[in-house]
Amino acid sequence: MKIVIIGASGTIGKAVTAQLAQRHEIIEVGSRSGTHQADMGDIAQVRALFKRIGKVDAVVVTAGKLHFGPLADFTPEQFQLGLDSKLMGQVNVALVAQEYLNDGGSITLTSGIVADQPIRFGAAASMTNAAVEGFVRGAAIELQRGVRINVVSPTVLAESLEAYGPFFYGFEPAAASRVALAYSRSVEGAQTGQVYKVW
Amino acid sequence: MKIVIIGASGTIGKAVTAQLAQRHEIIEVGSRSGTHQADMGDIAQVRALFKRIGKVDAVVVTAGKLHFGPLADFTPEQFQLGLDSKLMGQVNVALVAQEYLNDGGSITLTSGIVADQPIRFGAAASMTNAAVEGFVRGAAIELQRGVRINVVSPTVLAESLEAYGPFFYGFEPAAASRVALAYSRSVEGAQTGQVYKVW
Repeated sequence: MKIVIIGASGTIGKAVTAQLAQRHEIIEVGSRSGTHQADMGDIAQVRALFKRIGKVDAVVVTAGKLHFGPLADFTPEQFQLGLDSKLMGQVNVALVAQEYLNDGGSITLTSGIVADQPIRFGAAASMTNAAVEGFVRGAAIELQRGVRINVVSPTVLAESLEAYGPFFYGFEPAAASRVALAYSRSVEGAQTGQVYKVW
Repeated sequence: MKIVIIGASGTIGKAVTAQLAQRHEIIEVGSRSGTHQADMGDIAQVRALFKRIGKVDAVVVTAGKLHFGPLADFTPEQFQLGLDSKLMGQVNVALVAQEYLNDGGSITLTSGIVADQPIRFGAAASMTNAAVEGFVRGAAIELQRGVRINVVSPTVLAESLEAYGPFFYGFEPAAASRVALAYSRSVEGAQTGQVYKVW
């Protein structure tokens, strides 16, 4: 398979690339690194990206920014950051990818455990990750030509504990290499509309 | 209790008003009707609204626009309509209301069955409604002074079947008066972080 990984230089992206590159051709995309660069928050850049790449068999997104902060101080603009990046960035990719995927191809997006298990300072993360999962449920029943869409919801990464550990006391971490298996299950399996929880 | 109902002139809003007005003082708010007018998509208008109303015991939102259309034709702007209105409109109300609610007061928002049970043309509705539910889970654990937040997820309304029925074949409709009971349970009960499914 020819697989596009957007966010390939991130902790999850690297692990997914390592997992899938064993069996497939990987096209690495990043906002500032990789073979191709694109800001997925701008659908014009996503369109230009796929025009360059052409037809593919799978698209994986492991990118997206979110603001974290106390609810009492949150502004609409801070919520909008996640809506523009982690939500609409991924939605933009799905909207464009549906035209460039070969029959039976797949789209795999990324949410996160806080969609279901909230943490302090995480109101935008809970909201945005839940939105990605809702979009995937909605889109799955309308994609044509057997194109599938799923989302992986990782717990906190073992690799991120040093930075984020205090926000995730009591959460069981997972190594990025283990999270990558869920992306493989989505890309190399046959399901659609699924939330693969790695927790 | 003094209860603000935003969207009081809608089908659900009228039923919630009828249910809660039996025991409480209701302040009706609409975008163009009611005792007070405000566009909840603009947080400055929400701030001005609560400055006029002052302290209250409960805030209910039964308003919010969404675009419906085939996934293959959806544009980011059409997704943004729901994000600005049904999602950030309700989030804006929650952000401002947390300062104006008396201790132990409550915020009750509205999502919808398609967050979980997608329909054709409903990708933005699934996404946006799921986002509202994620926000409520995230906000519930951070609200101070015993302030609570819940969300009601109604099925298709019996009153809306003539307009929307063909999109909801096989969905069991509920009368708005029955949906209103879930808002009463949120406002007059003691739970927080709940999704009250009326389906």
